[in-house]
Amino acid sequence: MSPVRTYEVEVLYDVPRIEEKLIIRALMNLGIKPKLTTVKDTPLIFKDNAPSVCVVRPMSMYRAAYSAAVRESSGSFTINSSEAIIACGDKVLTLSKLAAAGLRIPKSIVALTIHSAEEAYKLIGLPLVDKPPIGGWGRLVSLISDETAYRSLLEHREMMTSQQLKTHIIQEYIKTPGRDIRAIILDNQLLGAIYRYKQENEWRSNVALGAKAVGFRPDEELTEFCIKAANAIKGVFVSVDVLESDGYFLNEVNGVPEFKAFIGAAKRNVAVDLAEYIVKVLKR
Amino acid sequence: MSPVRTYEVEVLYDVPRIEEKLIIRALMNLGIKPKLTTVKDTPLIFKDNAPSVCVVRPMSMYRAAYSAAVRESSGSFTINSSEAIIACGDKVLTLSKLAAAGLRIPKSIVALTIHSAEEAYKLIGLPLVDKPPIGGWGRLVSLISDETAYRSLLEHREMMTSQQLKTHIIQEYIKTPGRDIRAIILDNQLLGAIYRYKQENEWRSNVALGAKAVGFRPDEELTEFCIKAANAIKGVFVSVDVLESDGYFLNEVNGVPEFKAFIGAAKRNVAVDLAEYIVKVLKR
Amino acid sequence: MSPVRTYEVEVLYDVPRIEEKLIIRALMNLGIKPKLTTVKDTPLIFKDNAPSVCVVRPMSMYRAAYSAAVRESSGSFTINSSEAIIACGDKVLTLSKLAAAGLRIPKSIVALTIHSAEEAYKLIGLPLVDKPPIGGWGRLVSLISDETAYRSLLEHREMMTSQQLKTHIIQEYIKTPGRDIRAIILDNQLLGAIYRYKQENEWRSNVALGAKAVGFRPDEELTEFCIKAANAIKGVFVSVDVLESDGYFLNEVNGVPEFKAFIGAAKRNVAVDLAEYIVKVLKR
Amino acid sequence: MSPVRTYEVEVLYDVPRIEEKLIIRALMNLGIKPKLTTVKDTPLIFKDNAPSVCVVRPMSMYRAAYSAAVRESSGSFTINSSEAIIACGDKVLTLSKLAAAGLRIPKSIVALTIHSAEEAYKLIGLPLVDKPPIGGWGRLVSLISDETAYRSLLEHREMMTSQQLKTHIIQEYIKTPGRDIRAIILDNQLLGAIYRYKQENEWRSNVALGAKAVGFRPDEELTEFCIKAANAIKGVFVSVDVLESDGYFLNEVNGVPEFKAFIGAAKRNVAVDLAEYIVKVLKR
Repeated sequence: MSPVRTYEVEVLYDVPRIEEKLIIRALMNLGIKPKLTTVKDTPLIFKDNAPSVCVVRPMSMYRAAYSAAVRESSGSFTINSSEAIIACGDKVLTLSKLAAAGLRIPKSIVALTIHSAEEAYKLIGLPLVDKPPIGGWGRLVSLISDETAYRSLLEHREMMTSQQLKTHIIQEYIKTPGRDIRAIILDNQLLGAIYRYKQENEWRSNVALGAKAVGFRPDEELTEFCIKAANAIKGVFVSVDVLESDGYFLNEVNGVPEFKAFIGAAKRNVAVDLAEYIVKVLKR
Repeated sequence: MSPVRTYEVEVLYDVPRIEEKLIIRALMNLGIKPKLTTVKDTPLIFKDNAPSVCVVRPMSMYRAAYSAAVRESSGSFTINSSEAIIACGDKVLTLSKLAAAGLRIPKSIVALTIHSAEEAYKLIGLPLVDKPPIGGWGRLVSLISDETAYRSLLEHREMMTSQQLKTHIIQEYIKTPGRDIRAIILDNQLLGAIYRYKQENEWRSNVALGAKAVGFRPDEELTEFCIKAANAIKGVFVSVDVLESDGYFLNEVNGVPEFKAFIGAAKRNVAVDLAEYIVKVLKR
Repeated sequence: MSPVRTYEVEVLYDVPRIEEKLIIRALMNLGIKPKLTTVKDTPLIFKDNAPSVCVVRPMSMYRAAYSAAVRESSGSFTINSSEAIIACGDKVLTLSKLAAAGLRIPKSIVALTIHSAEEAYKLIGLPLVDKPPIGGWGRLVSLISDETAYRSLLEHREMMTSQQLKTHIIQEYIKTPGRDIRAIILDNQLLGAIYRYKQENEWRSNVALGAKAVGFRPDEELTEFCIKAANAIKGVFVSVDVLESDGYFLNEVNGVPEFKAFIGAAKRNVAVDLAEYIVKVLKR
Repeated sequence: MSPVRTYEVEVLYDVPRIEEKLIIRALMNLGIKPKLTTVKDTPLIFKDNAPSVCVVRPMSMYRAAYSAAVRESSGSFTINSSEAIIACGDKVLTLSKLAAAGLRIPKSIVALTIHSAEEAYKLIGLPLVDKPPIGGWGRLVSLISDETAYRSLLEHREMMTSQQLKTHIIQEYIKTPGRDIRAIILDNQLLGAIYRYKQENEWRSNVALGAKAVGFRPDEELTEFCIKAANAIKGVFVSVDVLESDGYFLNEVNGVPEFKAFIGAAKRNVAVDLAEYIVKVLKR
């Protein structure tokens, strides 16, 4: 390591969650005192004297991507890279990269206008799922069962300002057994997998929407599938969402993975794995 | 070429400009009848039966990036790739990649909040340039000469919804000789360069803001500089904006380059170059 | 009339429609050459030398209200007043004034947050109608039949910036015989009434959404009802929307009424009535 | 009072401030236990069984106006009425009503588009003040000293969604002696007046922006001026902002007045005055 780097590792975040605290503690236990940067308060300077490894943890996707990008201008190794964070954070890009890598995704169409969304509706049929490219925790992800509801959704999205929120990803609805699968991948290895059983009265399986996490042992096909997904978006440390019906469908990848519920359900301390990986990177 | 591809080349656009018409005509002159797709009206289907080469020309950055991404899921070669379009369209990513490639950029800071922007202001000093990551034709790019004006700008940006428009890129103001430089790069070669002389009463050099284009012969340093910039963002066909003061500063790269004014000033029919390049790609 | 007023009548508009052309022609036929003001291009000066009577016709509600307000600062008589335009344009205010005047409205609740909207949902039950206070031509007016669709709507509205669009008016759904009633009131008199039969596959009766206009002879109860509604919002020239089920329900009042479809269906040239009224006002 | 009204007085608020606590305490001291309603959590039902007097205190203008409007549908007396709250909260309406009442305002122009704002700029000249119709605590109120800064402001406002924020009120800059005047009016009487000395490096005199409050004894002209202003917008309990240069200029009226700083500086417990007024209203 070059002597001018006063810190070797930096953890960047906006709102510190349990995940960030666990990562910091795991690093400390391995003798690494990370630089802590609250990205909301700190000007991020291009080509600054930055740490070797930057763990990028802001909850907001663009805050995460921009924090990573600025650190990359100084030659830091970022977990994850700005490219991977954007490839995960924008679901059009995710689906593009997963499909280009030969992975199975739900039948999906991008509509850039309300007119095009009406055409896509005819191609997919009901029920369908409509979501914008960006947004986490299932927000604005809508299950549409009738035309009146769809027209209302289209009018609402038309009123939004950003072109991203005006863009529709329209997908066939995959009928799952009341749960989806979330796996965490680090450095080309699957750390574990959980089922997320959705709450009654809610069709989405987000933990933030009340889903219950239960660990299970993934088979080889699923394991391989998830590792390929992480590689497709060039993610070092990601979580992968899989839908299960007649076989697996890749759906989303998260570039700043939450893992609080995962640790309990999968009995695997992801933060320790990450800290050990960082030590390995520092020794390279 | 596989026989199922009914068209070999597709031109995708939202609002057809002179540029798109010139590209289509140049392709026709070389015996290629491109498929024409208006992305506002057309559902874009992942893993569809897409043409081999897709020329991505929507004016809106996200429309361009999403059109490219969907076509890439089918294995098409896109000019430019969704990655390059986003790396150009988002100026935080552009600056990151240019700086990481060792190219000289103006002193730049990213501020994710109004508080951080106030800190960055102290670090850069007056006059400064403040711009959001996204937006074309110089829009919202502001030259700030006094603190009252800066505070007003910060309040205005705070009222915007998207995190991208709330993000500030704060840069030192580069005093140029009343013009900037625009060069067009295709397939690792510089096609030509022009000066854009800014209009009186306007500090920005965008042609859309009245700047006047004049061709000139770029020196070797500038030529190399611009080709490196195109490579840094992995762009096949881009325009590069350079500021000139005590040496060159790389500032922006455009992933869906306009070239109407360029053709006249640089005496180079960029559309013909592009069409010939596409023929070369089809023969690969 | 004071001799300094160069014009006695002004017609203010943003996008000139058939209605504005008919009003201008009807005024000309009565010997009045109105001043024509496109409010998009014209600075509106407080306490300016303004015409005696201003016919306020911008399609955008706030453009109409602000045009009226500026002219009122100069003492002009505005049709309608800024107060009436806002009382019509903001449906919370409309319902408040109609109910306070003792007129029957659908059971209605205002919810200022998503949390409060969830509570209101329990009080109204399904099906329900949810609409924001502002917006014309039925936009964002949603008929909700199931909880999943309602949750999706709530999430979408939460993403909007303006407090007005975040506000929910939640109403019982009034089951009508496939049509609603629109009457036009001028100077305390009902000029006529039409049914608007809604298009198949569309539950709203807006002409902009394909509804068909058919004239009919209103009974005395309806006539009195509509005149009271116009008075409740202090409107001189308005259209009133009435829902018919077990009796009449007042629902909306329009302060810049469209009447193109009305003229044909009700066989009454509303523009001529308006011009004659203006002559009467000028003589006062 | 009708026996079905379980509470005689209601205090409605969103974020409880010192002002609301003082009002509640003053009412309690007079033997009145008010109903406390947090408007963010409570569905507001039209024609509900509402208290006789409603003190409307939400900080957000539309939340205040809508709370008042719903209560008015039940016949409650609201302080202030929805009409007064909107007439104060929307500065185009304020200026219209003040000017129509013959009160002196700064030279002011409304521009509904960027094009019209450029024309208004030529009419007013530099320096000028530009502000949107809505927004409190001085937000977006901009002092413009040069054309570059004004063009930047125009571009920023153009990116906003609401027509209200796209509307410009362009005013001559009134050169004051480093302070403005704020008076509080209740039931046609002036309770007191303070100077607000603006902070260094800030041209606006908002207490939220660091201004310092100092009480003074208003002369008769000012007193009469402020009472007329309150009447012009039909406000029962308002604060009036006055600019002082060569005589007084009425500028803004606040329909949900803050008075924490006022109490200390003017040595007048406004909350007690308000509670006593409410007792008087209940006895009517």
